[in-house]
Amino acid sequence: MKVFFAGSIRGGRQLISTYEYIIRFLEAHNYMIISEHVALQDLERIEAKMTEQAIFKKDTTWIEESDCVIAEVTVPSTGVGYEICHAVNHQKPVLCVYEEGAKVSAMVLGNTSKYIIARSYSNKQQLEEILLDFLGKNSRM
Amino acid sequence: MKVFFAGSIRGGRQLISTYEYIIRFLEAHNYMIISEHVALQDLERIEAKMTEQAIFKKDTTWIEESDCVIAEVTVPSTGVGYEICHAVNHQKPVLCVYEEGAKVSAMVLGNTSKYIIARSYSNKQQLEEILLDFLGKNSRM
Repeated sequence: MKVFFAGSIRGGRQLISTYEYIIRFLEAHNYMIISEHVALQDLERIEAKMTEQAIFKKDTTWIEESDCVIAEVTVPSTGVGYEICHAVNHQKPVLCVYEEGAKVSAMVLGNTSKYIIARSYSNKQQLEEILLDFLGKNSRM
Repeated sequence: MKVFFAGSIRGGRQLISTYEYIIRFLEAHNYMIISEHVALQDLERIEAKMTEQAIFKKDTTWIEESDCVIAEVTVPSTGVGYEICHAVNHQKPVLCVYEEGAKVSAMVLGNTSKYIIARSYSNKQQLEEILLDFLGKNSRM
């Protein structure tokens, strides 16, 4: 199953270690993450060599080719918000996870689409359970 | 002409004075801003009385009822990103403005949709010209 992972890039890289953790955890469970670059320490340098349009086309295409999307939404990110909406419009199940206490947009928390789930976590174990529960449900689809 | 204005709410309110400026400028030019609450100083208090779903439905409906959308994207915002995508999917012209030097998402800067324009500004006069130019073009549609 192909999973598109969305995390803040230009919005701020303060949670990059969480993104790495999520991606490694999912790969250890044999899920294919088709946007693992989000957790790369030198992502900005890599993306600086691509045009803005190339990045846009790459990400939107990957979303369209994915089976589902996981977005870490603790750090506000215009790009992640765009990607969540794009995924919903392509009928992709989307799991939005965030640290308990984070101020998360009503466009996520109040979203009425059947394709979106939003879950807060307060520790790694809880985060792992949320991820596996979502992916397990979508594997059976 | 009904204009939906999008600016960061939970992503951070540091540019609220800019949002107020934009909205007052447009209203002085007789444009109807259908989301002027974005510039309210006590918005969080007002929205705290609404459910997340009510906020989501209100904003998405307003976008769908608008003639065009203006988004100030200097401050990263998951909600603004979602709203931009929602507007594009409803064939609404979207103007994204940002302070020169801001790190803006490739989902905005590299967007290939004919409905999106992104423009940086370095002073108020330039911002005003960009706004009037966009609205003038869309008034004639």
